Formats: sequence, structure tokens, C-alpha cells
Amino acid sequence: VLNVEDLPKNLKMIIAYEGTAYSGFQIQKNGPTVQAELKAVIEHITGETVDLQGAGRTDAGVHARGQVVHFHTHSNLSVEKLKKALNSLLPADIVVRNICEVSMDFHARHSAVSKTYSYCLYNSEERPLFERNYVYHYKAVLNITKMKEAVPFLLGKKDFKSFQAKGSAVLTTIRVVNFCHLELKGSLIVFTINANGFLYHMVRNIIGTLILIGREKINPSEMEQIIMGKDRAMAGETAPAMGLCLEEVLY
Amino acid sequence: VLNVEDLPKNLKMIIAYEGTAYSGFQIQKNGPTVQAELKAVIEHITGETVDLQGAGRTDAGVHARGQVVHFHTHSNLSVEKLKKALNSLLPADIVVRNICEVSMDFHARHSAVSKTYSYCLYNSEERPLFERNYVYHYKAVLNITKMKEAVPFLLGKKDFKSFQAKGSAVLTTIRVVNFCHLELKGSLIVFTINANGFLYHMVRNIIGTLILIGREKINPSEMEQIIMGKDRAMAGETAPAMGLCLEEVLY
Repeated sequence: VLNVEDLPKNLKMIIAYEGTAYSGFQIQKNGPTVQAELKAVIEHITGETVDLQGAGRTDAGVHARGQVVHFHTHSNLSVEKLKKALNSLLPADIVVRNICEVSMDFHARHSAVSKTYSYCLYNSEERPLFERNYVYHYKAVLNITKMKEAVPFLLGKKDFKSFQAKGSAVLTTIRVVNFCHLELKGSLIVFTINANGFLYHMVRNIIGTLILIGREKINPSEMEQIIMGKDRAMAGETAPAMGLCLEEVLY
Repeated sequence: VLNVEDLPKNLKMIIAYEGTAYSGFQIQKNGPTVQAELKAVIEHITGETVDLQGAGRTDAGVHARGQVVHFHTHSNLSVEKLKKALNSLLPADIVVRNICEVSMDFHARHSAVSKTYSYCLYNSEERPLFERNYVYHYKAVLNITKMKEAVPFLLGKKDFKSFQAKGSAVLTTIRVVNFCHLELKGSLIVFTINANGFLYHMVRNIIGTLILIGREKINPSEMEQIIMGKDRAMAGETAPAMGLCLEEVLY
């Protein structure tokens, strides 16, 4: 007789982390990673070896408010108890926000339909203090109105090759941007973008291009030409990792 | 002939800092302090020995958005250049917000007429992440309505002896609270208070008392009785330093 307790469960977790101290999300040989910390604590609690899958890699220094991971477990712990145990053992810069049981075929990466990222610029001559690890401090004056004018050109199904880091190997550079907007909150300029997928460094390269527009080096309408050019050299520099945050993964 | 350049100037600076890494504002033998860091950098830039005076001590772990300091200098550097030089040499957790020349009789502490402090409670079962060094994480449910009811009892000229840390030696425990309010912002409960002066641990002991009221251990009106009792034992525990921030000093 097969005992129901013997069947594995698939657990989906929403996690948040400050990426400052990590060499990115994904496990690697050199340097601490969020995935390695999380996997170690889960294995300590469950006594099992788990295959922990994340919705997406985030680079060194990139943060998350809504990264999603999943893993299979035979553990009988309730999700409430597991969440408590995880949060009491995880370092202060990683937090489990939510755990729920999902069907066995749910996969944090493969099942994702879209992701939302934010990017924070701290646009002031003065150094940021309390926000210093979560923003890119950009001192020169930026024309927000012009930056806002450029944002809608990013919407829709397009080839975003111009914003892809050189040397990436993907089948297609076509992605669908479902929404994006730029908001001014005091000294903070917050850019939010949702797409069905992101090319490597795509958000950071879009920010570099929006900065060119904000500095009035190029016109807002050139955003469209840069996209159509499918040439990385036409777009702006890659903005630093610390301003980037994975906000949400949708399924 | 006395050269005008030989006359000292009195400089008032508004500074902000994250107190997490410091043993408080005031210079002491054991442990790094904000005052020591600032004094060392000013002396490095001006080549003078300066007597740096702050508006008030802040304890270890307490933050500031608007601490005020003053010092006399013969330096010919403009305030703009001095600010730039200071901010390029100070550690990332200390920022000079503003420098201006003031009359020679201005004293950061003696000339102050009132100060404003804020205290942040993070009231959620979940651990704070990005705010973790700036808030006191309080897990149990708090009745904000009752806490708000108790706040007005603090207003006015009163003897606040009940909120003074034991063993303090001051001439009088009477202070004037000019305004105070409590605000809910998502998971954050922000308490703001302005007074002509503060007793040692006064804000943190008021917070401990407001927590007793939020937990419904005592009634909001008991705030008045606690003040009238002039007995430290009647008030709540001292809330942790990390939630406290010196917002502004008024002159």
C-alpha cells in the first residue's frame, strides 16, 4: 500500500533578498549565493537533499522582493512551520515571504509567464544614505519629462537585441513588454517593467539608454530607432546592478 | 593690520548617518563614533585641530537625518567645496547634507530650541528586509487606534520623569512636547515627537509604553497616569535603539 505521506510535495516559495552580499542568485563555486544559502537551510530543516529551482538568475548585487523558487520534498512540516523555521535560520538579508503547495508539474522557471523588475535611480548631487545599497546614485541632472516620453516605445512584442549583453546565446531576442513606466518620488526615479522574459542585462541596458535621453544626449524618439537598429552599440551603457530589483514573477 | 582671513569662521553642518556600525554619536575610547569619523575628516581637509560640537548625543545604533554640528575654522574653503570634500572622504554611512556659515555665538547644542525624533516599528509577523537596520521588528498585533488615543497625553509642558532612564542626573525632568503623532504606513508604525529637550531614553521609553497600550495590557488613558506618577517603573520597557532617528534640530 502506498502511504500518502510517501508522495513528494511540490512547494512554491516567494522570497525577498538584498543582493549586496551575494555573487548573485544562482549557485556558483566562487562566492556566496542566495540559492546556496536557501538550499542549505531547507536541507538542514528537511534532512533531504533538494533540487531548488529559481524563476530567474539575478546578478551579483541585484535584489528581489518577489523571486520565486520551487522544490520537491517529502517533509511533513506544514507550510507555516516551514516558513517560520526557514526565517529563523536564514541570514537577515534573505526572507521567505510565502510558501504554498502547488501541483507537481509547477516549475518556478518554466511555468512563469512574465516577470516584473524595478530599477531605482537616486538622482541628486547628494549621496544616498539609508537607500545606498538599493539605488544607482546618478548625480547629473536628468530630464524626467524626456525620459517618460521614451518609455512607451518599449511596449509590445519587439526584438530587443539592442539591449542584450554581447556574447549572449539565446534562440530569439524577441520579447513582449506588457507594461513599463517611470515615476519620480523625491530624489528617486523608479522604472518598472513587466515582460514575458528578459534578455541578459536588458533592464540595465534600457536604463543606460534612458539616462542618455535624460541627459539630452539623444531624443526620446531615438528609443524606437535604437530598438529597430538591433545593435547593442546604439544603446546606452549597462547601469549598475544595485539599482535593480526582481519585484514579481507571474504564473 | 588684522587680515580678515585670520578671523575664524563658525560653520554649522546638518549631517545624516546610519548608526548601525557606530557606538553612538559622541567620541569615546572604545568603538567607532560618528563624531570621531567626522572630526578626523574635517581635520584632514582643513589641516587644523577642530572642536566639533553636536546638537545631541545619539546612542549606539540610533540614526540621524538631521543631526547638527558646529566647529570653528580658519579654512578658506567655500562651504560648497568643503561639503564635496567631506562627502568624498566620509564613509558611506555618514553624509553631510548642508553647511552654512553662522555667527560666532551659534552653538549646535546650546542654541537649539527643539528637536524632532522619529521611531519606526515594523509591525508584522514577517521579518523586515530592506528596512531591517532602521526599524524595531515587533511581531505581535498592535491596536493602532488605542495607541493613537494615548499620544495626545504627551503634549505640553510636563514632568516626564517616568520616561527617564534610571540613574540619570539632570536638574529638571520637565520638558515641553510641542507635537507628536503616530502614523501607519503599511507594516510601519511611525511615531514622531518634537520637544524642547529629551530625557535620556525618553523616546524609547515612550515607545515601550505605547506598545503596552497597543498590546491592550493597559488603557490609552493610563498614559496620563503614568506621566503623573513620575515613576519609571510604571512605564513600559526601553524600545531598541535601531528604530530611533534624530530627524531635525530647530534653532
